[in-house]
Amino acid sequence: MANPQIEAIREWLASKPRPTVLAERRARLLSLVDRYTVPSDVQIDAVDASGVPAEWTLTPVADPKQVVLFLHGGAYISGGIATHRHMVAQIGRVARTRTLALDYRLAPEHPFPAALEDALTGYRFLLSQGYEPANIVLAGESAGGGLALAMLVSLRQIGADLPACAWLSSPWTDLDMSGESMESKATVDPLIQKPYLLEAAGAYLNGAAPRTPLASPLYADLSGLPPMLIQVGTAETLLDDSVRLARRVAQADGRVVLDIWPEMIHAWSLFYQQLDAGQQSLEAMGAFVRATLDAQ
Amino acid sequence: MANPQIEAIREWLASKPRPTVLAERRARLLSLVDRYTVPSDVQIDAVDASGVPAEWTLTPVADPKQVVLFLHGGAYISGGIATHRHMVAQIGRVARTRTLALDYRLAPEHPFPAALEDALTGYRFLLSQGYEPANIVLAGESAGGGLALAMLVSLRQIGADLPACAWLSSPWTDLDMSGESMESKATVDPLIQKPYLLEAAGAYLNGAAPRTPLASPLYADLSGLPPMLIQVGTAETLLDDSVRLARRVAQADGRVVLDIWPEMIHAWSLFYQQLDAGQQSLEAMGAFVRATLDAQ
Repeated sequence: MANPQIEAIREWLASKPRPTVLAERRARLLSLVDRYTVPSDVQIDAVDASGVPAEWTLTPVADPKQVVLFLHGGAYISGGIATHRHMVAQIGRVARTRTLALDYRLAPEHPFPAALEDALTGYRFLLSQGYEPANIVLAGESAGGGLALAMLVSLRQIGADLPACAWLSSPWTDLDMSGESMESKATVDPLIQKPYLLEAAGAYLNGAAPRTPLASPLYADLSGLPPMLIQVGTAETLLDDSVRLARRVAQADGRVVLDIWPEMIHAWSLFYQQLDAGQQSLEAMGAFVRATLDAQ
Repeated sequence: MANPQIEAIREWLASKPRPTVLAERRARLLSLVDRYTVPSDVQIDAVDASGVPAEWTLTPVADPKQVVLFLHGGAYISGGIATHRHMVAQIGRVARTRTLALDYRLAPEHPFPAALEDALTGYRFLLSQGYEPANIVLAGESAGGGLALAMLVSLRQIGADLPACAWLSSPWTDLDMSGESMESKATVDPLIQKPYLLEAAGAYLNGAAPRTPLASPLYADLSGLPPMLIQVGTAETLLDDSVRLARRVAQADGRVVLDIWPEMIHAWSLFYQQLDAGQQSLEAMGAFVRATLDAQ
């Protein structure tokens, strides 16, 4: 039954255990993806998004008036434009939009709410560039998925026009780590374990309560949000962060699709160049984004 | 914010309150849908499916080697081929398959496991007609959704070849009515309230425990099942029957998509001829079925 592609990725991950020194952790995340390439038809342009380092990608199939704003994963303490460039380029291809990836500030140097402020700055930058909210899609992976959700809540709170929809890949929505899967999936998750999350959450929260709604948006008022696609693997300690999110959005009368992938590990779409299920999950995301944008 | 189409259906439902006499209840369900029509390009043929009354539909776009086996709703005590014919025909059109709808036996005349036996007979009938399991899709609405899930569990238990995938629309998976939405959504659900479910479950269970796995498949071992699309509305007391099902399938490492529709009421796809969201949810089902069948 085991999927040989995911087994190969598990072996690769096992050969590169997570270091304890922060700088080495950040380098390790990059080394996990340095085998991946960006196709030559992707136009890449660095940009200063009102003070936040950012990067555009554009493929020949994109509608340049539409954009996916992407927030990378890395537990709020690592990751960046470089670690996710290959996947973001693919997101733009399947969604047929531009992308804008943000290098939001990281903890512990810059704790909550620095990342959220940068994400909101990135959104306002897009508005300043003439993008209509109805042509903007929010996307985020892992910590970036929680951040995208916090952004939506924050924008709704201030009465701003909301983006068209959101894609959350393996989102980390509960910095209190209270999901049952934190224990029940611990033996099958090769990437995300509670001690690591506790350390990262501590660095990000910097003394704020773990259930602070804009840091742990599972606990926020989730009413009035745009349609949301949540993708999660069954081999994830964060599985329940997605299931509980879908439930809370439904309780608040929202549109949500919870797309669950067997055998897949945390943020598996990042490995799409060697993983058919990663490619397929990105295609499902693209179909969701297109259906939402085209319905307007 | 309110969707005028669903408001019109709510008014229509309110004008036809559910009677207490069983025969009148059965007639009422038919009267709720007698405004709907079956397009003239749908070929309809009654058939005896090894003793279970059944009906084929076929549209010009169908692949006649592929079939959706449909199990209607009605809380195990009402409903039939006639109540769901218009929707089943549309299922076949969007999935591009034949359909076979079953008039499985109803409680209280025929309690559990009569309906399940008839559903399994229907599946074996399809096999006897030359349909490959990989070309069969199980589909069910409400009680029929629970029944489809119980069928899958039963087939896996006996080691039979499983169908390609399943579509569950507003499935009733917990005859113990223990979902939190049974209370939290009671004020917004115009169709399904706990006293009604208790009465129907009592008739169906006929003394069996409410958490009997093949009657309440939420409590069954859900490992090893084919991909599953679950659709549910946010205005349903049965919302948590779907959310908990998705979570349990994920815990068992299964493929599941939980598709949640705001403002939609129980089994809203039945009203697709006057409800855009019903049409759209059927189209999403068709896309899921086609993706599964075409990937083989």
